[in-house]
Amino acid sequence: MNTNQEAPATTLQDIIAHAKEYGFVFPSSEIYDGLQAVYDYGQNGVELKNNLKTLWWKAMTQLHDNVVGIDASIFMHPLTWKASGHIDSFNDPMIDNRDSKKRYRADQLLELKAEAYANAGDEARSTALLQEMGRLLGDNDLEGVRNLIIAEGIKDPVSGTDNWTEVRQFNLMFSTQVGSLAEDSSLIYLRPETAQGIFVNFLNVQKTGRMKIPFGIAQIGKAFRNEIVARQFTFRMREFEQMEMQFFVRPGTEMQWYERWRDARMQFHLAVGLPAERLKFHIHEKLAHYANAAVDIEYKFPFGFREMEGIHSRTDFDLKAHQELSRKKQQYFDNDIDEATGKPYGNYIPYVVETSVGADRLFLAVFCNAFTKETVGEGDQQKERTYLKLHPALAPVKAAVFPLVRKDGLPEKAEAIVKNLRSEFRVVYEERDAIGKRYTRQDLIGTPFCIAVDYQTLEDDTVTVRYRDTTEQIRIPISELKAHIGQAVSMERLLEKM
Amino acid sequence: MNTNQEAPATTLQDIIAHAKEYGFVFPSSEIYDGLQAVYDYGQNGVELKNNLKTLWWKAMTQLHDNVVGIDASIFMHPLTWKASGHIDSFNDPMIDNRDSKKRYRADQLLELKAEAYANAGDEARSTALLQEMGRLLGDNDLEGVRNLIIAEGIKDPVSGTDNWTEVRQFNLMFSTQVGSLAEDSSLIYLRPETAQGIFVNFLNVQKTGRMKIPFGIAQIGKAFRNEIVARQFTFRMREFEQMEMQFFVRPGTEMQWYERWRDARMQFHLAVGLPAERLKFHIHEKLAHYANAAVDIEYKFPFGFREMEGIHSRTDFDLKAHQELSRKKQQYFDNDIDEATGKPYGNYIPYVVETSVGADRLFLAVFCNAFTKETVGEGDQQKERTYLKLHPALAPVKAAVFPLVRKDGLPEKAEAIVKNLRSEFRVVYEERDAIGKRYTRQDLIGTPFCIAVDYQTLEDDTVTVRYRDTTEQIRIPISELKAHIGQAVSMERLLEKM
Repeated sequence: MNTNQEAPATTLQDIIAHAKEYGFVFPSSEIYDGLQAVYDYGQNGVELKNNLKTLWWKAMTQLHDNVVGIDASIFMHPLTWKASGHIDSFNDPMIDNRDSKKRYRADQLLELKAEAYANAGDEARSTALLQEMGRLLGDNDLEGVRNLIIAEGIKDPVSGTDNWTEVRQFNLMFSTQVGSLAEDSSLIYLRPETAQGIFVNFLNVQKTGRMKIPFGIAQIGKAFRNEIVARQFTFRMREFEQMEMQFFVRPGTEMQWYERWRDARMQFHLAVGLPAERLKFHIHEKLAHYANAAVDIEYKFPFGFREMEGIHSRTDFDLKAHQELSRKKQQYFDNDIDEATGKPYGNYIPYVVETSVGADRLFLAVFCNAFTKETVGEGDQQKERTYLKLHPALAPVKAAVFPLVRKDGLPEKAEAIVKNLRSEFRVVYEERDAIGKRYTRQDLIGTPFCIAVDYQTLEDDTVTVRYRDTTEQIRIPISELKAHIGQAVSMERLLEKM
Repeated sequence: MNTNQEAPATTLQDIIAHAKEYGFVFPSSEIYDGLQAVYDYGQNGVELKNNLKTLWWKAMTQLHDNVVGIDASIFMHPLTWKASGHIDSFNDPMIDNRDSKKRYRADQLLELKAEAYANAGDEARSTALLQEMGRLLGDNDLEGVRNLIIAEGIKDPVSGTDNWTEVRQFNLMFSTQVGSLAEDSSLIYLRPETAQGIFVNFLNVQKTGRMKIPFGIAQIGKAFRNEIVARQFTFRMREFEQMEMQFFVRPGTEMQWYERWRDARMQFHLAVGLPAERLKFHIHEKLAHYANAAVDIEYKFPFGFREMEGIHSRTDFDLKAHQELSRKKQQYFDNDIDEATGKPYGNYIPYVVETSVGADRLFLAVFCNAFTKETVGEGDQQKERTYLKLHPALAPVKAAVFPLVRKDGLPEKAEAIVKNLRSEFRVVYEERDAIGKRYTRQDLIGTPFCIAVDYQTLEDDTVTVRYRDTTEQIRIPISELKAHIGQAVSMERLLEKM
């Protein structure tokens, strides 16, 4: 057997290179030298991402009688963003250096300084600086933020000077003009989050779907943020995809649902194959204005633990804000009996528990986790083997079929197997190069099964099936392939574990 | 048996009302009185639309060894739209009336006039007017278009005058500013079509996927057009979704692929359940500048035959334009042997055959086609029955499980059935109201199977299964439900017919 030795830690550069070279993620508009912080999913990336989206969708809606989906548009009435607070306060504080003409996020300049204190061993000073910054930003004291930057002696890394402008707030929403009539055209925004598409449809769904509280509405869709500093590959993009669920509950019961969904969402990530030691909860100490409890599920990316999903108890903040601005009641009549009074709970604005995961972040976590480099063999025979250890239900290609040679009827036999399997799952045919090379290519994109057709196949209708993770091979009848592979790659089987 | 009588023709108003009332399509941001020409898919609409998207995706990629997918971003480098011609010529001709201050599409004013001639029996004059308009627009003779409007005596329906401004071109692309740095920020566009996301990734996919011509790249995604006159419900929206496939071929072979894809796409629509008599080909007489052959597949909507899908032979127009502007070679080396010369075909820019279907239009066609009103019974017993005759693989909910009454352990038995089935397909539980009402509600959203749990179930573990289309009921063992329904709702079985 092989001796597996631990390879050096995977870097983000390894991930970016592999994603591009094997058709998972390309820079957007690359022939025009790209568009910053925007990426395209290639032929293998789109399959993996779609599989993750389908799995999330089924896990949220199909497995729960009381969760349904919607697909709201990216364009929404601009008052939506007035009510949600995005027009007034979805800002980052920016500062310019007059000498270099460069612009920075004021908070990030201070965070870098705090990091430098911590690295130099002065944890107390680091913490004090972050606290002071938090206080100033909380008070929207932008002059105070500028004074702090100067007091801390922070210089522009380009010009080396502290010739700073005032700090200003920069709104992160993209806007566009809709309508062609001069007098009618109006400014609208590309949604910065999908959640509001659910809130404005709350009563539409509740009434037409006859939903009883507690119930949830799930949605997958694009959102857009004009990030000032976008980086770390697909982790922070200007165009990204969210998978969100808003769960509407009776006020006072939100904490039990918050805890239940927090645990269910962690269970999902474990079922997908992310290891427990690379996942952790990060409880928010300082809460957003709309929340009364919040926790992130963080994954340990090559650049450290970062938020992949957030679970928030959002109270009735959003529905109440929409009710006030639209003057349309956002209430639910609860005819369950309150044991304390013996009467129905009656009308109220529901509280909301939200689960919000970045589809691109989940993709990146699953991709990083699957990326495996092993040194196999011993002594002179040692060599490196790279493969993607994806759950078979998530792999872009489920099986590859190879004729051993390109003659004697083997290609025809292999193609017949492809035709027989392809309505069930994604299967490819490959006849070029030596069979070892073909195995390697499938390893690199994470194909769990390779099926080889050889001369024995012509005699007894059996093939070899080679397993990606162990490289072991077994011989089985062609007639058993559909069931054997179908079971392993079935999303339904994976759902049963949730 | 019932006597089915033909009901009056379905109107678009019937469709809009049913779509809203049963959770298929809501006006966007309705609590703020909506956003023109933008719609949201509700809890049942999203399931039907997702099923159609999944079916298209599998039919295009999974069933063809030589077609792969991608998912390019909505944001692209702005030079993309320079190369494609959208910046210079993706325009509609507009004219304003100085008295009413209203704006119109100049071509549509002339088309209405031509329609009036035709309705009055003067076909010759109608045709002549349309031809003259076509000539003027082809020459971009906007003054000529204005003169024709005045010569034809066309008056503004609001002001009743012909006090027209000049005709101007209005670009239909939405634009936004990306980037926060004053000097770096740039104008980008929301893609008006998904096709260009495929063209700029042609070589990325071909090389990393080792694709051999002929091969295709498929994509599903949002596109945006600032339509001047958007109407007919989800048929013409400002935000819409396309399902496109670009098939790259050796120049000279494009007509055979054009014909093959044209026929395959018609087969798809028939397999989905659209009837042959409501589908037709419309061959383009006048071709776009990039095409050497083009045909639409039209569906007979309540407002007449309209384009649902286009199949275009686009030559090498797009790849050539991108090569010129990006200065990156968009060539393919074809090592197949040309029999005429005995040598490989060598380097060339491939020709492209495109299939492009509007996901929202396909949804609307399938929804209109499924909407069924029947008068059942005779004499005094006559009553109307409405249901959605959707293919079971496309239905939002596959099965509903009802306990006959809410006691004696029937709800628990029914819930156990739901739990057993729900990892396989979408199944709901419903205990409220009389069972007849529950059947009706499922009919209205197109659920193909209703499962009733009664007292006999407690004795022998059988249930009744009621079929949506015939309303017939049979009794079967619970143990057979998964296979019985699973087979009927299986997308894989539907794919086998393609």
